[in-house]
Amino acid sequence: MGAAVLRLFHRTDPAVTFYNQGVPKSKDLEAKLATIEKQIGVFQRISRLMVRELSLADTLQSIVNLVSQFTECDSTLLYLIDSDELVLCASSNPNASQIGRVRLKLEEGLTGWVARERKMLAITAEAYKDPRFRKFSDLQEDNCESFLSVPVIARNRVIGVINVHHRSPHRHTGAEMELMTTVGEQVGCLLVLARMASSTIEEANHVELVMAHGHIARKGEE
Amino acid sequence: MGAAVLRLFHRTDPAVTFYNQGVPKSKDLEAKLATIEKQIGVFQRISRLMVRELSLADTLQSIVNLVSQFTECDSTLLYLIDSDELVLCASSNPNASQIGRVRLKLEEGLTGWVARERKMLAITAEAYKDPRFRKFSDLQEDNCESFLSVPVIARNRVIGVINVHHRSPHRHTGAEMELMTTVGEQVGCLLVLARMASSTIEEANHVELVMAHGHIARKGEE
Repeated sequence: MGAAVLRLFHRTDPAVTFYNQGVPKSKDLEAKLATIEKQIGVFQRISRLMVRELSLADTLQSIVNLVSQFTECDSTLLYLIDSDELVLCASSNPNASQIGRVRLKLEEGLTGWVARERKMLAITAEAYKDPRFRKFSDLQEDNCESFLSVPVIARNRVIGVINVHHRSPHRHTGAEMELMTTVGEQVGCLLVLARMASSTIEEANHVELVMAHGHIARKGEE
Repeated sequence: MGAAVLRLFHRTDPAVTFYNQGVPKSKDLEAKLATIEKQIGVFQRISRLMVRELSLADTLQSIVNLVSQFTECDSTLLYLIDSDELVLCASSNPNASQIGRVRLKLEEGLTGWVARERKMLAITAEAYKDPRFRKFSDLQEDNCESFLSVPVIARNRVIGVINVHHRSPHRHTGAEMELMTTVGEQVGCLLVLARMASSTIEEANHVELVMAHGHIARKGEE
């Protein structure tokens, strides 16, 4: 039974296994449970944001704040693609003059690499030494030690990147990496949802839509 | 510390507290952890379904199956509103002849009540004795003992209902109720997302959208 629990910790948080050797097992479990309950809380709050009719800017601001609280990082930045650039659209360190103005080239830097490769990137320390790194902006985040970056996906396409920055070295946990992957998907959905006028939903016949899509799929499979 | 853990169990699963009295605390924690990891797994899988371009009928089918596995229920049914009726659009007991054909009046029955009131309804046993219950269809689910029903919400409006049925009496856990609330929101988002053509997303300028929405919100607040 002990082995099973160790494996559980290994899968989602390798650091905890080492740290907790010799500590009673229930303490490990309590810590793990607290983390995973926080993770569920973030998903539930984002889900609630997705059905409310808030301004998109405010919703994205709430999401970067939730991510910052969960990861206990120094800042969370959300970039969205605008032709060949990534434009800063939300920041947990809000500075009105930077939002919409900080622009990174898609073909350069760690953030551009994540967008192009559609891969998560987790760097524990000395992120600025990564060969993919180049300093492009005046953001203090560009001097950070640790960097976790995930693509924002909408309809199976990369439309942006979310970056979690720690000024000091930080070993990202499995829970943080899992959470960020899902947040990247949820932000993508939110951006698509924001394009739909309320009237379209109110007047929509969802039953017809399901039936029509079902038939299309079946025809496609033939 | 023990009190904190008890409260934790109470909040999400009152039944576990009674069942586990005298059992080592780590066993309680392991059981709780296993449940909550399953819950996270369901959210992550639905999130992945939301960014893929599957047929809507297949996606809804996958979701009712995920809910059935998580709740270990006998069936999960998804109804969507079509004017003054709720139409069966997905079922974990798939019967092609019932999908799109079973129709419940919005002003009648437990399912109609959930749609009208926008409330979750959890009945442990003898659901068929509930004064709001009336048998309308030939579905065997209408004879179930236990019934958990949540509204499907899109853009802050009820557009359907998801029902989880147990043939035998069943005390719904906090985890089940929390999960179903979020699934109701996610299914609502999925139905809105399905209306957007891929080309709209590919050609969309998400940055402009965020900036425009931010300004609109600020104007509205003035």
